[in-house]
Amino acid sequence: MHHPFFKNQGPIKVSEIVTYLNININTINEDKKIYDIKDLTSCTKNDITFFHSKKYKDVAKKTKASFCLTTEVLKTELPNTCLPLVVKNVLVSTSKVTSIFYPESINDNFDETVTQIDDTIFKDKVSFGKNVLIGENVSIGNDCKIGHNTIIEKNVVIGDNCSIGANNIIRNTLVKNNVRILDNCIIGKHGFGFFPIENRNLRYPHIGIVLIEDNCEIGCGATIDRGSMSNTIIGKNTYLDNQIHIAHNVKIGENTIIAGQVGIAGSSTIGNNVKIGGQAGISGHLKIGNNVEIGGGSGVIRDIPDNTKVMGYPAKNIREFLRDNK
Amino acid sequence: MHHPFFKNQGPIKVSEIVTYLNININTINEDKKIYDIKDLTSCTKNDITFFHSKKYKDVAKKTKASFCLTTEVLKTELPNTCLPLVVKNVLVSTSKVTSIFYPESINDNFDETVTQIDDTIFKDKVSFGKNVLIGENVSIGNDCKIGHNTIIEKNVVIGDNCSIGANNIIRNTLVKNNVRILDNCIIGKHGFGFFPIENRNLRYPHIGIVLIEDNCEIGCGATIDRGSMSNTIIGKNTYLDNQIHIAHNVKIGENTIIAGQVGIAGSSTIGNNVKIGGQAGISGHLKIGNNVEIGGGSGVIRDIPDNTKVMGYPAKNIREFLRDNK
Amino acid sequence: MHHPFFKNQGPIKVSEIVTYLNININTINEDKKIYDIKDLTSCTKNDITFFHSKKYKDVAKKTKASFCLTTEVLKTELPNTCLPLVVKNVLVSTSKVTSIFYPESINDNFDETVTQIDDTIFKDKVSFGKNVLIGENVSIGNDCKIGHNTIIEKNVVIGDNCSIGANNIIRNTLVKNNVRILDNCIIGKHGFGFFPIENRNLRYPHIGIVLIEDNCEIGCGATIDRGSMSNTIIGKNTYLDNQIHIAHNVKIGENTIIAGQVGIAGSSTIGNNVKIGGQAGISGHLKIGNNVEIGGGSGVIRDIPDNTKVMGYPAKNIREFLRDNK
Repeated sequence: MHHPFFKNQGPIKVSEIVTYLNININTINEDKKIYDIKDLTSCTKNDITFFHSKKYKDVAKKTKASFCLTTEVLKTELPNTCLPLVVKNVLVSTSKVTSIFYPESINDNFDETVTQIDDTIFKDKVSFGKNVLIGENVSIGNDCKIGHNTIIEKNVVIGDNCSIGANNIIRNTLVKNNVRILDNCIIGKHGFGFFPIENRNLRYPHIGIVLIEDNCEIGCGATIDRGSMSNTIIGKNTYLDNQIHIAHNVKIGENTIIAGQVGIAGSSTIGNNVKIGGQAGISGHLKIGNNVEIGGGSGVIRDIPDNTKVMGYPAKNIREFLRDNK
Repeated sequence: MHHPFFKNQGPIKVSEIVTYLNININTINEDKKIYDIKDLTSCTKNDITFFHSKKYKDVAKKTKASFCLTTEVLKTELPNTCLPLVVKNVLVSTSKVTSIFYPESINDNFDETVTQIDDTIFKDKVSFGKNVLIGENVSIGNDCKIGHNTIIEKNVVIGDNCSIGANNIIRNTLVKNNVRILDNCIIGKHGFGFFPIENRNLRYPHIGIVLIEDNCEIGCGATIDRGSMSNTIIGKNTYLDNQIHIAHNVKIGENTIIAGQVGIAGSSTIGNNVKIGGQAGISGHLKIGNNVEIGGGSGVIRDIPDNTKVMGYPAKNIREFLRDNK
Repeated sequence: MHHPFFKNQGPIKVSEIVTYLNININTINEDKKIYDIKDLTSCTKNDITFFHSKKYKDVAKKTKASFCLTTEVLKTELPNTCLPLVVKNVLVSTSKVTSIFYPESINDNFDETVTQIDDTIFKDKVSFGKNVLIGENVSIGNDCKIGHNTIIEKNVVIGDNCSIGANNIIRNTLVKNNVRILDNCIIGKHGFGFFPIENRNLRYPHIGIVLIEDNCEIGCGATIDRGSMSNTIIGKNTYLDNQIHIAHNVKIGENTIIAGQVGIAGSSTIGNNVKIGGQAGISGHLKIGNNVEIGGGSGVIRDIPDNTKVMGYPAKNIREFLRDNK
């Protein structure tokens, strides 16, 4: 379950959905209820799914969903058990339907549910500073510290023996044990994901979370965005220096070390035992292997295999970089 | 009017100004009053202006100001109606005189005028979090939200239907409608503008504002500095990701998308429908056209014409960049 | 004295130290007391020192310490007056012993000693905003301003006529006179220094401070980490723009100007009258001379001599850079 924190407003009548999308369809049982929106593989017959690219043809043929947002061209690939709902832009429509099921995943307004920690069940359990605020649906383990002015907004689970500094804002995040979060971090906000539309962009839902595994340290001023359809993950014993930006859906492995001001764009995957030098940037949707070293200031725009040292912009083998720049 | 928020302390006697600048001048009516300091073109006969470079010769000839800070060489270009005040460094003197008219535009000390929002007229109008502070001369429209610990300092106008997150500090800023500002932003502070002087730099006044147009989104941790003599502008429906720095006098167009950790140096202009990738940097005083795409990590040090895709450091045509880096 | 703020828990019995390090040694007077841990040169006969590399052979021969953490190979260089304590990894053991003497220098948990400034001796002396917190062992000079939500944590000395903005967190820092710190800065936290160990990194102590000299300005969102064994220093009249990261042990000279989003890695030294353009990065352990100019976006990976202008990644002479990139 990748979105444990967002309340599913389903079931929703299919008639409501087709009306919202402005689709004309006659052959539909309008009273039929849909329980969730899921991808082609994980959906059940109670769900609606989406199919927007030929490369998912094989899984589309076997989908169990009863409804599918798709195009005139792709709809022929679907099984008889799945009724196609033909739309102009599958991803925009998917976004809209997701926002009906998970309306709270769109707009990250400030959390109105918070109260002073003195007025919560954590009053005697947690060591806390001045002006600490706690939202709904928060759980905190043993031997934890939470610093001044920090806001643990709704939908946060913190494990044992964690030290959280001052001026942090955390929401929609699962923090395991022995994690240290320094000061001024914003963790769990929605990512920079939207459909650009003239005059008024359309934000799509972010129903994933941020997952921070055991023994991690997150430096001052980090921004770590939660996932859209999957989660953003920081692996065990990974250390982040100050002013780092981790975009939505990024997955970082274990024992990885990331120096100051690094930025990792959306949906990239970083392996285990990786070292990333200061101010390096990693483009979106890349796969960085295990035991990789990326020199400071590098701009990585291609996948990097295991056990490789790279540097430069665009990043290349470090020996090549040093030779070219003698 | 480009500095609606800074109170003009004029009129000021010309004798006060020549004394402050330590100028000896005999032919002056010391009781004459000056009402404002303006550039060569927009000044009236009640104002003082400044003329520091030959390239403004043609407008200098026609200036309507009664007084002009200038040099021994340039003063001959002025009309008879304008009395030259010859100084060693025109810009430094201009800065000093501006600071007499607008003393509050120099030192951005913390705003002592703020009070808890509960004690203001916004108590029942705005949806707000804990510990929200509001300064003098603030106006807020309908259906706005302001998050925890946010400080709306003096001289801020916020339109309708805006969502402002937590831990923000905003001053000298005009926010239009449907704008979303996430968390931890500092908007409207003076820019990084000063005359370097050994042992004690001289800050020059920043009498411009930050103007954020309709439907914009400003990501977490942004710093957007207000203008010095003009304004810093974020155009309609422009979206900024996290940790972005926008220096003073920058003007960004409409429907532009700027990814995380981008920095734009002072006085650069960015067009409409521009896309800027993560960590890109744009030098000062550049003109980036419409429909431009700038790849992540790029360092832009020259103007870019409309409809161009660039990448690299220094940024060049993206096809050239990719060919050179196969 | 480079760690005026961290309380020395010594003297500590040598038996306690050898037990903690799990060393077997017979020839030792277990009741002998050790007062401090210092480097080979500055130690006295009451101290323990460490010797981990051949290049310190000459000073090792003359050390006055009674005990020395070292290796089987290096121990023969020590004088008879100094008993070698042979360990597997000298730096890790040094880190552990330092943490016995200075336990508070390891874990920067939130400061539990703070109180509202209204309840301190600064109530009538300092001009302060809402929700300002002051820790133990803080001293503040005359004519200072401290903005809203700022936390002056323990071990901070602030001189006269300083203006500190809102939302800052400062600890273990010595601020001289006429210094301006804008908003949202984190100053004096431990650096990104630890021994990478699978599953659980070992943080080493940071017993240095941050020293900010007269007339400096620190922009919004800065992170300036304190030193590990030496101090982090910002020289007189040096100005930092927004979103700058200064790592531990960095020393910056006087009258230096650093633009937005620059990062300086650990232990680098920057001279006087240096200008660093926006987003430039400087690797660790480098020496940047006086009167150097570093272009925006540069990545500096080698020392730079006095009076040099560089640009590029890696940074090279600016004429060469511009010629290569016509």
